[in-house]
Amino acid sequence: MTKISKGKLLGIGVGPGDKELLTLKAVKTLNKIPVICSPRSAPNKESIALSIVKPIIEKRKDFKELTVLEPVFPMTEDSLTLEKHWDDASELIANFLNIGLDVAFITLGDPSIYSTFSYVQKRLENNFFIEVIPGITSFAACASSIKKPLVEKDDVLIVIPKIKENLEILMENGDTIVLMKTSRNKKEFENKINHQKREKEIFSVENCTMENEKILNGFPENRSYLSTTIIKFKK
Amino acid sequence: MTKISKGKLLGIGVGPGDKELLTLKAVKTLNKIPVICSPRSAPNKESIALSIVKPIIEKRKDFKELTVLEPVFPMTEDSLTLEKHWDDASELIANFLNIGLDVAFITLGDPSIYSTFSYVQKRLENNFFIEVIPGITSFAACASSIKKPLVEKDDVLIVIPKIKENLEILMENGDTIVLMKTSRNKKEFENKINHQKREKEIFSVENCTMENEKILNGFPENRSYLSTTIIKFKK
Repeated sequence: MTKISKGKLLGIGVGPGDKELLTLKAVKTLNKIPVICSPRSAPNKESIALSIVKPIIEKRKDFKELTVLEPVFPMTEDSLTLEKHWDDASELIANFLNIGLDVAFITLGDPSIYSTFSYVQKRLENNFFIEVIPGITSFAACASSIKKPLVEKDDVLIVIPKIKENLEILMENGDTIVLMKTSRNKKEFENKINHQKREKEIFSVENCTMENEKILNGFPENRSYLSTTIIKFKK
Repeated sequence: MTKISKGKLLGIGVGPGDKELLTLKAVKTLNKIPVICSPRSAPNKESIALSIVKPIIEKRKDFKELTVLEPVFPMTEDSLTLEKHWDDASELIANFLNIGLDVAFITLGDPSIYSTFSYVQKRLENNFFIEVIPGITSFAACASSIKKPLVEKDDVLIVIPKIKENLEILMENGDTIVLMKTSRNKKEFENKINHQKREKEIFSVENCTMENEKILNGFPENRSYLSTTIIKFKK
C-alpha cells in the first residue's frame, strides 16, 4: 500500500474587491489548485471573495474539474452556532487534504486580518501544512482610494473592529483610527467620535475598489456591509 | 500650438519583498510606464523597491527607453535636510509630468502606510492627477510568514513606528501590537514590553518574504533594517 501524502491548506487573501489587486502569487495558485473553499453568509448570497477570483478560475482549461466548496456561515454572534459551522467546514476541508488534494481557502482582504480563515487555520494547523498568501487589506485600499496617507512618520495607527469601553482612550492615543465595517454600529461610532474634541478629518469608503465604490467625507450613508472609516487626527 | 496634457503620478506599493506579491495592477502599470522613480538611502545602496520590480521591468521590450530616477535620501532625522531633498525630488518628478509623461513612484509595502510616497504626494497633488495602487503591507506579510492571525473578532490592532511616552497605555489597550522597524530602537522596546505584565506571545520577522527571511520568537537578533515585531496579548 502506498501512503498518500496529505494536501496543504492555503489561506489566500484576494484583496478588497478589484480583481487587479490580486497578487501574482494568488493568481498562480488559483490557476492550479484542485479545491477552492469560499464561505458564504447565506445559501442564496454569492461569496464576494469567490466573485473576485471567478474571472481567473473560469479561464482554467480544467475549470470543470475544479471543486468549489461553499459552506454557509450565518451572520450570527452566537458562538456555539458559529463553532459548529467552523468545525463542519474544517472537517469538509480535511476530507480533501486527507486524500492528498491542496485546498485554497479564499478570503476578502488579507487572511490574517479579521478573516474567517483564522477559524479554519486553528482547527487544521496541527494536522496539515499551512501556507498563507497575504492580500491587500481593506484599510490600505481605502487610503489609496481617498488618496491620503493613512500614517506617516511617527503616527500610531489603531484599527478598531467594534466599540468597546476603551474607545475614548484609543482615540486620545492614536493619530489615525480605522473603523472596520463602520455600518454595523455607525450611530454609536458617529456619536462618540464627534464628541471627541481633537481636530480631525473623517473619510469613509463603501465597497472599496469595486464598481460601486463610494468615497465620502464623514461617515457612510448606507448600511453597506463593506464600509470602512478613516479618522485622521490633526497634530 | 498644441497644449500638452500633463502626466499623472502613480504611487505603487510593491509589497514586502517577494516579487510574486506584486499585484496584477502594479505589474500592468510597470510594464507600460515611461518613468519610474525609486528613492535610495545612499548613492551606493540599491533601492529595495527597485530590486523587487527589476525582474519585471527588465523584460520590457522598451527597457532601454525606460527612465529610472533614483534620488538619494540620506537617513537623517534632520527635517530641514529631508524637506530639501523631497522638494528636489518632487521638482524632478514634476519635470516629467509637465511634458506629459506618467511617473510611477515605487515604494516598499504600501504607499499610504509609513511610505516615502506621502512626501511627494503632498507636494504634487495640487498640480497633478494622482493615482495610488495599494501594496501588501509588511505586517500583513509578517503574519502570513509566522502563520498566525494578526487580529481576530474584536481585537484592536495598534501599529507603532516609534516609542513615545504613551507606549504603556497603548499596550494596555491593544490586543495585537505591531512594532515597525523594531531594530531602530530594539533595546528600549524590549525593556518596556518585557515589563508589561499581560501574558503575551512575541514574534519577529526579519526581511519578510525575501530570500533571507528569518522568523524569530521574541525580538530580532540583528540590526536588520527590515524587521517587524508582532506582540499578541492573551485575553
